[in-house]
Amino acid sequence: MTRTVVASATKEIVIGFDQPFCVIGERINPTGRKKLAAEMVAGNFETVKSDALAQVAAGATMLDVNAGVTAVNPNETEPPLLVKTLEIVQELTDIPLSIDSSVTEAIKAGLEVTKGRPLVNSVTGEEEKLEAILPLIKKYDVPVVAISNDETGISEDPDVRFAVAKKIVERAADFGIPSHDIVVDPLVMPIGAMGTAGLQVFKLVRRLRDELKVNTTCGLSNVSFGLPHRHGINAGFIPMVIGAGMTSAIMNPCRPQEMEAVRAANVLNGTDPNCQEWIMTYRDHQPAAAGAASAPAEAAGGSGGRRRGGRAARRSAG
Amino acid sequence: MTRTVVASATKEIVIGFDQPFCVIGERINPTGRKKLAAEMVAGNFETVKSDALAQVAAGATMLDVNAGVTAVNPNETEPPLLVKTLEIVQELTDIPLSIDSSVTEAIKAGLEVTKGRPLVNSVTGEEEKLEAILPLIKKYDVPVVAISNDETGISEDPDVRFAVAKKIVERAADFGIPSHDIVVDPLVMPIGAMGTAGLQVFKLVRRLRDELKVNTTCGLSNVSFGLPHRHGINAGFIPMVIGAGMTSAIMNPCRPQEMEAVRAANVLNGTDPNCQEWIMTYRDHQPAAAGAASAPAEAAGGSGGRRRGGRAARRSAG
Repeated sequence: MTRTVVASATKEIVIGFDQPFCVIGERINPTGRKKLAAEMVAGNFETVKSDALAQVAAGATMLDVNAGVTAVNPNETEPPLLVKTLEIVQELTDIPLSIDSSVTEAIKAGLEVTKGRPLVNSVTGEEEKLEAILPLIKKYDVPVVAISNDETGISEDPDVRFAVAKKIVERAADFGIPSHDIVVDPLVMPIGAMGTAGLQVFKLVRRLRDELKVNTTCGLSNVSFGLPHRHGINAGFIPMVIGAGMTSAIMNPCRPQEMEAVRAANVLNGTDPNCQEWIMTYRDHQPAAAGAASAPAEAAGGSGGRRRGGRAARRSAG
Repeated sequence: MTRTVVASATKEIVIGFDQPFCVIGERINPTGRKKLAAEMVAGNFETVKSDALAQVAAGATMLDVNAGVTAVNPNETEPPLLVKTLEIVQELTDIPLSIDSSVTEAIKAGLEVTKGRPLVNSVTGEEEKLEAILPLIKKYDVPVVAISNDETGISEDPDVRFAVAKKIVERAADFGIPSHDIVVDPLVMPIGAMGTAGLQVFKLVRRLRDELKVNTTCGLSNVSFGLPHRHGINAGFIPMVIGAGMTSAIMNPCRPQEMEAVRAANVLNGTDPNCQEWIMTYRDHQPAAAGAASAPAEAAGGSGGRRRGGRAARRSAG
């Protein structure tokens, strides 16, 4: 059974097919957040701190930490800022971190200060990236996110993306890095732009699980890019992709609808023993939110459940 | 490709792996609804009519019609009442109907008056049932729901339930009934009572699709029986079971959360071309319902989506 172990100084988490879905909180990332970027440049980490605490409170399993505030001299500016951000976050929370940067020096600096066993986000199939990142993964003995694109870009052909992932796993092996420390991001296309995006990623995730036996992750919200009510699409995608075998996602744990989908999928996937997490979270849930119009339906839906439930329960018990 | 054709006098619907999920409205059913049962016995069909219209308005693909108001002399009382109910419903709506009864005479009477190509709900693997129902299915050339239990009851072993389904399909073939007119109900156990209920039904549905190549259905709400916030579990189950290959369900279309899960799964499953149904339904959706606390997260989630979405879109377009 594939087990990817990540850890903070005090807490160990296993990413695996038989584990609850690993929610990697995406909020600590200045990309597309001008205000946060300005704060971080100014040495103000109040939003970073509140985002860290809010994501942990919302149920994040890990926190992704990105300090890519500028495209100007990132090689100079990003390493110290990422180090500072990582130190602040690991001071504040006890869950494992993901060191997120496209700058090799920043990842290296981050690995020097991050306690436990952080996840590195990310390496790609690009030769330059493989040569720069894999030695660090080996040296610090940490797992890494492998994004399945290379010099040719992101292929629309899932077989090509599978081949790139396979290449990364094989190159990692050459460095002595086991496949259970490679978490593949098969790259989820926006379903609004490509109608087959869902079907192709479900098939790809199944192949990655069955053939390469690796854990997988993705930038979850990408699937709903450009559509109205994105959270509804995201919440439908989560159970489907978990059913296909995906074991983690970089997502926003502060979205109740998405986290409810994760918790429901864990129950149905058999990774929430005795539905304990679900019951603890929703035992006092008020169905009112569903709208008064649905109240009578609610009652009947319950009856329908009782009828078939009762029959199934009785018969299967005997 | 497996195509199960159902029809009203004026409207034809295809149930299939490449079709939008078929939502069979469960509301017109006095089981567990004392008030509705009393009304129907008294010849008052106002609730039946309003339930029919409400389910069609909510997006039901078909309507299940059950008139099992009493356990006393159902052979005498149910046939005329089911006929009356079917006539009223098909007068009021143009979507296909499902004739739902455990009384053979009632199904026979229902088949006499229902226009188009109704679905018969149901036959089981019980010898007596097979001998009583299959000849009617052949005579009236209609599809039938095949529930995978037999004289021994409902097995907890999915392999046994698969074997019962296989037996029904083979027996139907002996009567000259094609497998595409058999819609198998693999029987979904309550996840709260059996932690493997989800995994076993997903595997079973895949086998039914890949090996028997039949369409499938289930009493959806059964999976959440006994748990708090059942609609959250149901909404997580829908995308997972659709991803496994289920093509229809007997459910309550008046539940917004469950219907949203069906529409999202159709988008992700590639059966909502150009996301047209999704966009038409949710283009004016207000995320306010998600809670003010999530508003900033919403913005960031969007950014995350734009970042990866933008990258994916750019590269994959080039």
